[in-house]
Order: sequence, then C-alpha cells, then structure tokens
Amino acid sequence: MAATRPGSITSAKASGKPGRRQAYQPPHSRLAPLFFPESVAVIGAAREPGKVGHTVLDNIIQGGYQGRILPVNPKVDKLAGLRCYPSVVDAARDAGPVDLAVIVIPAPLVPGVMEQCGDAGVRAAIVVSAGFREAGREGLVLERELVEAARKHGIALLGPNCLGLITGENRLNATFARSMPLPGNVALMSQSGALCTSILDWSVRELIGFSRFVSFGNKADVDESDLLSDWRRDPRVGIVSAYLEQVADGQRFLREARLTTRRKPLIILKAGVTDAGARAASSHTGSLAGSEQAYRAAVEQTNSLPAATMEDFFDLISITSQTPLPGKGGVAVLTNAGGPGILTADACEKQNLRLASFSSRTVSRMARAVPGAGNLYNPVDILGDAGNSRYLDALAILAADRDVASIIVILTPQAVTDIKGTAAAIVERAAATRKPVVGCFLGEEEVEAGIEVLRRGGIPNFRFPERAVAALAKVHRYAERRREEKLFEPVSFRVRKEQVATALDFSRGGGYLHIGGFQALGVLGSYGLRVPRGRLAKSPAEAAAAAAAIGFPVVLKVVSPNIMHKSDISGIRVGVEDEEAARDAFEDIQAAVRDNMPDALFLGVAVQQQIDDAREVIIGVARDPQFGPLLMFGLGGIYVEVLKDVSFRIAPISRADARQMMHEVKSYPLLTGSRGEQPADTGAIVDALLRCSQLVTDFPDILEMDLNPLLVRPQGQGAYVADARMVITP
Amino acid sequence: MAATRPGSITSAKASGKPGRRQAYQPPHSRLAPLFFPESVAVIGAAREPGKVGHTVLDNIIQGGYQGRILPVNPKVDKLAGLRCYPSVVDAARDAGPVDLAVIVIPAPLVPGVMEQCGDAGVRAAIVVSAGFREAGREGLVLERELVEAARKHGIALLGPNCLGLITGENRLNATFARSMPLPGNVALMSQSGALCTSILDWSVRELIGFSRFVSFGNKADVDESDLLSDWRRDPRVGIVSAYLEQVADGQRFLREARLTTRRKPLIILKAGVTDAGARAASSHTGSLAGSEQAYRAAVEQTNSLPAATMEDFFDLISITSQTPLPGKGGVAVLTNAGGPGILTADACEKQNLRLASFSSRTVSRMARAVPGAGNLYNPVDILGDAGNSRYLDALAILAADRDVASIIVILTPQAVTDIKGTAAAIVERAAATRKPVVGCFLGEEEVEAGIEVLRRGGIPNFRFPERAVAALAKVHRYAERRREEKLFEPVSFRVRKEQVATALDFSRGGGYLHIGGFQALGVLGSYGLRVPRGRLAKSPAEAAAAAAAIGFPVVLKVVSPNIMHKSDISGIRVGVEDEEAARDAFEDIQAAVRDNMPDALFLGVAVQQQIDDAREVIIGVARDPQFGPLLMFGLGGIYVEVLKDVSFRIAPISRADARQMMHEVKSYPLLTGSRGEQPADTGAIVDALLRCSQLVTDFPDILEMDLNPLLVRPQGQGAYVADARMVITP
Repeated sequence: MAATRPGSITSAKASGKPGRRQAYQPPHSRLAPLFFPESVAVIGAAREPGKVGHTVLDNIIQGGYQGRILPVNPKVDKLAGLRCYPSVVDAARDAGPVDLAVIVIPAPLVPGVMEQCGDAGVRAAIVVSAGFREAGREGLVLERELVEAARKHGIALLGPNCLGLITGENRLNATFARSMPLPGNVALMSQSGALCTSILDWSVRELIGFSRFVSFGNKADVDESDLLSDWRRDPRVGIVSAYLEQVADGQRFLREARLTTRRKPLIILKAGVTDAGARAASSHTGSLAGSEQAYRAAVEQTNSLPAATMEDFFDLISITSQTPLPGKGGVAVLTNAGGPGILTADACEKQNLRLASFSSRTVSRMARAVPGAGNLYNPVDILGDAGNSRYLDALAILAADRDVASIIVILTPQAVTDIKGTAAAIVERAAATRKPVVGCFLGEEEVEAGIEVLRRGGIPNFRFPERAVAALAKVHRYAERRREEKLFEPVSFRVRKEQVATALDFSRGGGYLHIGGFQALGVLGSYGLRVPRGRLAKSPAEAAAAAAAIGFPVVLKVVSPNIMHKSDISGIRVGVEDEEAARDAFEDIQAAVRDNMPDALFLGVAVQQQIDDAREVIIGVARDPQFGPLLMFGLGGIYVEVLKDVSFRIAPISRADARQMMHEVKSYPLLTGSRGEQPADTGAIVDALLRCSQLVTDFPDILEMDLNPLLVRPQGQGAYVADARMVITP
Repeated sequence: MAATRPGSITSAKASGKPGRRQAYQPPHSRLAPLFFPESVAVIGAAREPGKVGHTVLDNIIQGGYQGRILPVNPKVDKLAGLRCYPSVVDAARDAGPVDLAVIVIPAPLVPGVMEQCGDAGVRAAIVVSAGFREAGREGLVLERELVEAARKHGIALLGPNCLGLITGENRLNATFARSMPLPGNVALMSQSGALCTSILDWSVRELIGFSRFVSFGNKADVDESDLLSDWRRDPRVGIVSAYLEQVADGQRFLREARLTTRRKPLIILKAGVTDAGARAASSHTGSLAGSEQAYRAAVEQTNSLPAATMEDFFDLISITSQTPLPGKGGVAVLTNAGGPGILTADACEKQNLRLASFSSRTVSRMARAVPGAGNLYNPVDILGDAGNSRYLDALAILAADRDVASIIVILTPQAVTDIKGTAAAIVERAAATRKPVVGCFLGEEEVEAGIEVLRRGGIPNFRFPERAVAALAKVHRYAERRREEKLFEPVSFRVRKEQVATALDFSRGGGYLHIGGFQALGVLGSYGLRVPRGRLAKSPAEAAAAAAAIGFPVVLKVVSPNIMHKSDISGIRVGVEDEEAARDAFEDIQAAVRDNMPDALFLGVAVQQQIDDAREVIIGVARDPQFGPLLMFGLGGIYVEVLKDVSFRIAPISRADARQMMHEVKSYPLLTGSRGEQPADTGAIVDALLRCSQLVTDFPDILEMDLNPLLVRPQGQGAYVADARMVITP
C-alpha cells in the first residue's frame, strides 16, 4: 500500500502527476525574493497577542523559516527572543541585506516606510495593512503613492490589504492566518483573504498540501499574470488554483494562462461572473457581449478548469493534486449498489463524460469475478455483499481495459461491507495503475474511517457521485484538449495593415468615429475578407453605369452617415436587373430618404454586386474592459436578435477556436444543409473569423465592429461581407 | 435561544413549518397496518447475528416497539427471550391477531407463506427477501405469485427486495438497517435500499429526524402513489422526500403529487432521468419527447422540488424540514467577508433567486450598526472584525425589512471571529422571526463547533454559499407557486366527445390507425379547435366548385394515405385565386403524384380556405410510458426541427401550464411582435393547447398527434389547424 502523503511532492511524482518532472532551477524571476528571501523584516512586529503584527512574526517563527528574521518596531528592543530594530534601514545596516519586508503598520505610514525599504535595499514587500483602494478615495491616493515608491526602488510588492503568502519548501509563513497548510504540490492565489482561510482549513482536513499560497489583496503590483508566469515554470508547483474577482490585464492573462495549462492544470474560481450589466451599445455585439461571456471565452480558450462553485473549486484541487491525468477513453463506474450507480451514469450523461465501453475480455473476466445478479457492464454492480476482494478483483479488471481512462469506486455501507478494508484495497489498486481512481463513499460517520484511509492513501473521495463526475468530467476535458494543444495556436495571414492604418487615421482626422459603407468594406478588404464589387453612385446615370460595370443583378443601398438601419426607410433595392431599373432604383431611394429622413445627409447610393444563394451570418466585435476584443458569431436576423444564439471568443483566436465558435451556436445545423439545402461554405466563415480576429488585434482602436451580414455562399464559393460598421477611438 | 431538537415535531411546530397543524386523526388507509400494527410477526426470525432475520427482529426489539412481537421460525422455541412460533398461523391462533408480517425467508418460499399469512388474518406484509423480479425470469414468476396471494387476501404488501420501514411515533424499526433515524417530521420513500442507509447515516449526523422511512424495493404492490396518498393527510409528515427510479402509474402519481404539494413540500430525486433513448417515432413530437422531458414536466406541473443531485436531495430535506417557508420577497445575504458575498450574489443570479431590495430605513439602521468600510446594501458586509453583537444587530435589521423573505448568514473564520458565539446569536435571532434563516459557515475543523451549535438550534448550515442559494431558490419557487395554487387547476371545455368516439371507431374499424386530412381536422373540430373551411375534391371540376363555395384564395393539398410529406412531392398549391386556377392546380397535383409516387393511392385533393397573416406553430402529443400523454409546443419549421426549441407538459394541463409552455420556448418573442409585426393571438394558442390536452386525456387511444401547422392569426383573430395527423391504438 502506498503510504506517501497525498498532495506531497513525493506522492506527486509517484503517481505521475501533471507538471512533468524537470531539472530544478532556482527561481530567477523578480518574484524570487518574495518566495525565497534569505532574510525577512517584519515592519510593525508587535508583542501583544491578537495584534496582526504579532501573529505575522509568530507565524514566521513557528512556521520554521530558516532565514534571518528581523522584527522592526521602534518601541521595543527585543521580540520573541530576537533583536528588534527601530527601522528597516537600521536592520539592513546592522544585520545585512533584507530581501523581504512584511509591512503591518497603519496605511498612512506605509508609503513612507516603502521609501525606507528602498533605501535599505529591500527587494520585495508584502503589505498586509488594509486602508487603501478598498477604503475609498483617500486610500486610493495612498495606494498610488505606495506603488510609486515600490516601482521607484524596483521592489516587487504583494498587496496591500492581503493575508500574505506561504512558501512550502522554505517553510515561510508570512501571513496572519490561523493555521499553516500541509506541504504539497498545489499553488493558490486568491483575491479574497477570507477565502484563503477557509481553503486552509479545508485543506488541512483533506490532507491537501500547498507549495505556494498567496493572498494578493488589492494586487497593486504583483498580479495573477505575474504569478502564472512564475508558477508555470516552477517545478514545485504541480497545479495552479486561482480565486479571482477581476483580471488586471486580460490579454496578458490569456497568454500566461495558455502557457500554464500546457504544463499543469489551472483551476479558476471567478466571482462576479454574472454581473454582466446591460451596457448601452450601438452594435449587436456590444449589446450581447457581457463580462460573463468574455470570462467564459477566456476559460475555454486557455483550457483552464472553471470551478462553477466554491465546492467545485475544492473538488478540482483535490482531484488534480492527487491523481494522474486520464488518457484517452471513458470512465468506469464500480458500485456495490444499483441506485447510486444509476445516479452516476445520469451525471456522466449530463456532464458529457463518456462511460467506457468494455472489451469482451473485460466482460468475461468480470463474469468470473462477480456473482450472477451483478451487472458486468458499465456501471459495474458487484452487489451489496461485495467484500474487499471482489472490489480488488473488479478494479484490476477495469484498470486493464483499454477504453477505461478513469475509475469511480462507489461504496454504500451495507450489512457486510468492510469499509476500511475496501478503502485499503482501492488505495492498493490505484497505486498499481496510472489511471485516476477516485472514491465515492456514501454516508457520514459509518464511512468516515474508510474515507480517512483513502485520504492517507492519496485517493480523492467525493461525498456524492455527481460531484465525482463533475470533477472528473472537467479533468477529462482538460487532458483531451491538452493532447490537442497545437490546434489552439493563433494563426496569422499576410494582410495590408498599412492601408487600414491610413484609412482609420483619415476617418479619425475627419472627425468620423463611425465608419460604414465602402470605407468599412475597404478596411475589411485590406485584411483579405471578400466584399462584393461595388461603387458609389451620385446620380441615376452613375448608378446605371456602375451597375453595368459591375454586372447584373445588383443591389442599391443608400449612403448616409445619418442612416443606420437602411431597410427601415426603404433605402435598399435588391434584384436590380438592368440599367433602366438601376436608374429608377436610385431615384426611388433618393425619394425615400427625402420623405422619411429629410434631415439626413444623402451622399449617394452604393451599387453592389448581388450575392445570391447565400445564408446570412453576423460577425461582431466588442471590447471587454478586462479581456479586450471579444469576437461574436451568430446567424443573421432573428437568430441573433431574438434567440440570442451567439458564441464568443477573445481575439486573437486559433483555427480550432473559430471552428468551435461556429459549432457552439444552436442554429449551426442550418449551415450544414440539414434541411436538404446545399451546405454553406463554413471554411469561408472560419477564414473570416480569423481575419477579423487579426484585424482587431492589430488595431486596438477599433472599439466595435459588425459584419452584418456576411453572405455565405455554398461550399467552396466563399463568403462576402455585404455591409459593415465600425466604431473607432477618438 | 430555542433549544428544541431540529427536525422534531416540536420544533416543526415552533418554527412554523410547512404542513399546517391539524387535528390528529388515526390513520384510516389500507396502509395503516403497515405503519401502525398492534402486533408484528417476524417470519424467518433467526438467532445467528449477521443473518438478516436476526437483525430485523433485533431492530424491532431494540427500536422500542411497544406492540406484540411474534418471532416465527419452526426450528426454535424461543428467540431473544420471546416465544417463537412454528408458523404465522400458529402465532395468530395462540397469540391473537397479527397485523403485520415481516418476511425474511428465501424467495421461493415466500408465496406459500403469504398464503399462510392470509389464512392467519394478517393485514399487511413487508417482504425483505430478494430474489424476485430483479433476479430475472424465475423471480418475476415468483413475484407474480406473491402479489396474487397478497391481493387475494387483501394484504398490503411492501417490497419485495427492500430494506423495510420505520415509523417514528410507535418506534417501529422493521428494517435491517445499521442504525435508527432520529424522530422528526420527514417522510422518506426510496426505491434503493443502499441509498436509504446513506441517508440514515447522513441524517443522524445532521440531526435530521424522520417520522416515516420506507424502502419499497420492487414495489410490487404498495407504490409511491399509495404512500403520497397516505402521507399527504398524515399530520406527522411535515415534508415528503422520494428517491424514485420509475413511477408505477404516472397519471395517478401526478394527481397525488399535486395534492401533496398543496400542503407540504415534496422533494424528488429521480434516477435514470437522462436515459431518454432515441425512439423510433413518426411524429415530430414522438422524436423529441423523451422520458427526461416527461419527468421535468411532471415536476413542474406538480410543484415538486426537484433534486438535481444526491447532495441537493440532502440539502432540500435539511432546509424544508427545519425552516418555515419564505413569504413574498427576496433573499438577504449577510457576510463578514467580501469574496464569499460576491460568490453568493453570483449564485443568486444564476439560480433566479432575487436579492431583496432594502428599504431606506433598513439602510440607515444598518449604517449605524456597521463600521464605515462595510457594505450596507445586499449582500451586507459587516467586515472581518464582526463579533456576535454585530451579527445579531444586522440580523434583526434584515429580519424587519419587508422585502426580506429569507436570510443567508455567511461566516468565514477570521482572526477575531467568535464562531460559537455567532452561531448562538443566529439561532437566537432565527427563533424570533418567521422567515427562514440559513447558515453558511465556511471551513472545516475551525467552524465545526459553530456548525454544531446551528445544528442543535435547528438552523440548516451549508458548507458552501452556492449550495445554500440552490436550496433556498427552490424553496422560494415552491412557496411562490403554492401561493398561486389555484392557477394550476386543469380546465375543461364543453366538447362533442361522442363524435370523436365514433370517428376513431370508424377509422379503426376500417383498419386505418393513421388518421390525417379532413378526418383528423374533424376530430379536432369536435373539440372546438378552429379549422379552415374545406372540402375534398375528386376532379378538377369539383375542385373549382369547392373553391368557389369556400371563397378565394384557397389552398389545394393532395389526399393520400401513403403520402406523409405532401410538399416533398409538390402536393400542395397555395394562393389559388380563381376557379380556373383551382382546376389547373388539381391537375398539377394529380400529375405530380403520378410522376413522383406512382404507387400511392390518390384519393383526391383537399380544397381549403387560405389563412393569411399567420405564424406557424406546432402542437403535438406523444405517449410517455410512465406519465401518459405528453403535450409539446413549438414554433413551426426550423424552430422545432433544427433548434429543438420546444416545451412539454403532461395532459391534463391548466391554463397556467399552457401559458408557461408558450413562454418557455426561446422563440416566444417571435409571437409577441418583438420585431415590429402585429402580436399573434397567443390566447388562441393557449385555448388550442387546452383543448388538445382535453382530447388526449379523454381518448387514451390517441397515441400520437401533430397539429402541424396551427396557423396563428394576429391578436383577436384566432388560430386555425391547417393540417393534423394522429396515430391511434389498434
């Protein structure tokens, strides 16, 4: 039986954890002095128990930190048997270089002390004190002063308003938390100190260990992207978990998260996701794109594991820190009772976790191991009278099946069940396979001793089958997408960027921040999007000539900076078949503008090649305040407007992202010819999405954009942007 | 502080639980001898510990049952100090009437023993033994014999293959469970014995008490509807919880469940819900209607509380058994930490649980109770340094706000938090209000003592905020719908039922089980659905005459029992404006049939009044094997076929059900004129749904039915069934 401590580095290696083994390199980032200081000053260290300055010093000492500890407090000479210095400058002069300062003094004094830290050569600081941005206007001013001082001196600053941090291998507990986490392979960052304390409490009970534990509070300097950048290369970090309320720099976060998940699982619990808020926006995309959509897209694109709830967060940490990643295949369910087996199978279907299909060899072996009334197929029911040996045999058979990638073992406490013995059997079998095995012991007091055996053996246990399935489903999906990693590389086309820069500048120079018509189509054309042939006509005669040059049939549309919804005022004519009709159409449109919007500036009529046999889709872009350019896709008309049947990704996107965007909308079958029509050119849609992604990534000054409609012709015949609008920055 | 035991009858009354107080009446149903026997025979009682026959006898004795206990075993004279009888007949003769027999002998002997029970005058029996239907063909034969014997003698039979039952007030534990539940107000029925043992274990730890605890195994006789019928009138049952795999008689279950939820909460955990299975069905409705849809409709229509997972099941039992029902209003969240507060607010938004809007008085009172950096609005943040008294004050302020219908109190263990004291404060405050108050103490070891205080005070605690919200959201919804109860009465129209009976008989007599065209429209017309004027024409001349009589424009459609999809073979002409055109259209259709389906039987052409300005919707019916007639609604064409945008209810439905069916489809805004059109006559849709519901309830021999399309004219102008098909039983 494997006796290693779950969550410890040892067991992490033994069980083939994610985060492949690599040569250990001393940390080299600017965060190194935060996590691995050789000396720590505690500024505001206090004698009185109950004071935060006391708790922090006490935690550093009791935690077993081996570096130099330098209490700073002008009012005392000695603290906890250590010499106490009047200031950090004194400490550095008398005791040698100070790597890290932990600051626990009233907020108004902190910026000044940060200056002193700079003078003393301090390299990193943790500001535990509250009373900054979170406390209102004055606090915000203080926080700015604080950051300025830290930046001036090149000090990496954690906080303010945080619980502090804990590093596993050097036993540095620079927090005022009530307890110390166990050693292990989990790294945690949290924007809420209170959540940290709950997680600590939970982890001690569940024997989950941490190598890095960071509360970053207001994250005035060090933020989630800094930590990801550090931790993804840190061999002591097996999995990264993050509780976030906002993301400081969405685009950087996306890059760092994407790089992180290639090596190790990244679990995110995000608060405030539903607080989308209705924004006033003139485009379709703007009105449909909320912060929740952006966050969901970010999780999807970075292959992060999203925790839907706090419980889910714990479950995901528990499973990823203790079990290897599943390979290709489905899940096997092993149970000693029918009801929970069915509930588990139901949950698998709901969570899209495929039940493994057993080979005939597995079934025949199982037939010899299980009595007649049992079920040999998935979920395998080994009956209420199953003892350890039947569990052991069935587990061995399942682990040998090629389609079994993971195993859920359910136990209900029945008359003859040997609960501890079965737990020991599961631990033994799990150690003999590289497939994840999780327990689901149902009950409380009766099964507690068994769960304790699982815990000590590093087998995650879930109190309810649906939770086991929910966690495992996310892990399966993560592992699968990690195997397909290269599909998610952003792509880049050769484009005429200069032309676009000129066009945008020209428009801005003229005071026009809304770009439409031929100008918008021109910008898109520069990025390789196909647009119908077209020309501006200022008179009936010009319209006829343009139509003849373009080739019939043509479409005529009013051109006016004041008219947004052209069809509402009868500003569009389709199916214009000859020169005479083109002339008439021009006159009709001009008359319609005069009648319906007499104050509109009439610039003429656009004469355009008519694109037939096409289905209408919309591509849009809005700017998310955190993540930047948010790309939207949907089918035209009611699908977007009434059914809100749209999908989102953050630019830049990969080809796989673009394909997924298309597949995600419920109306997708309308593009594939499901009703007997010719399939639409979905390749052209993917291409258009990618080119739009590149355009708005290259030009952050495009705030909003709608390609509406993009006319998609049948397979192989391309897609044309029939109309487009953009909003640019002033 | 309220010191009553949570879940006990006492606390149920004290805290104003659901299930109003009523005069206690002795149970009068045929189930009375099961729950309240004056004497119990244990047939198969055994001396050897570990044997089920031993455990059952021991549980009855140890449980404290006060009636006569009569062990039956021909091999021994005495058992556990009691006289043992060779047979139940002997026991009845020597010891007086036997009310209940608990049978724990090998399955093949059970039918014979049941006969003996009948001879001995036994009134109810629990068959614990396994080896019946669940064990295959031979077991099924045994089970039939068993049921036959029980029915012959009028014995109420529980099981076979079950754990047994427990009744609270007479302390009857007729099970082989490992432990006895606490006394309380919860009634549980479970189709899985293993689940019962897990629930028992959990409930003992959580101090949740039971008045009725029933494992009904194969439910060969007594089933969920019998128990509902009994329990809804039983004053000792405050809430009903049920784990079900199948429902024996869906229509009866619906009636009983509807009656139950008017008085007390009914919580259902259903296994096998996703096992819909793709059925071969000729109608749209048939192909879209699965058992999951039927189950969801059943839950919705009966106002049951659906448990999504086992955990959810426990949570719902915990909250409904301990807290009063919320009145009108939203939830207030009280927290000592920001992060968990945001997570809770997020969860409320996701679960559609409205956050209460505080009155200005509440906000100003809160401002006096909470320091400056706190948040006075919902969620209220009373900060990390909050002690008991701040919790107490804030709770009192929230409880006094009119819009606060329920309160979630979050506690994170921070440096100065008095965990037990705060828990005591919550218990005290909760006792002073009739609004539900639930705790959410985050953490494990640190908060355990506080959670224990809550438990003993009858306050449900949830380990995670999202769980508290999920449970509370369902309870709010239940209470709200219970207030609106009368909206959910089925309605009934005056119809011409005889005409339909004749038409169906006529069709069946002719061997036609598929009914379409005028015949189907005739059936619907008899139930008051509007159909376009129409006539069958057998020649071009007849078509012209029919069209003239009906009035132009008309539609012509092929009539043939072999042609299901008329438009596929060009069998429809619309917009026929005069007699000449009608004649031509007839000939065209006849030619199209000859060309495309030469073997089809051509019966003529239906000439129909053309309904203009209409939107197409579909109403359908399929038969669910458990629940019966499943009614479907959706918009026509792609909305049903591609987007599967449909809703379901089980007939008979109420007016409110019909309205909800319409509102549930995503494309509903297309009916309300959201895009500038005239709103459709949604009242006519409701009317049509109700009449269809009545039709298929009155005629169970209609297996499937599609009204496709129902043409809905603008507001006030009605809806017309343009075409319909039915499948009837042979």
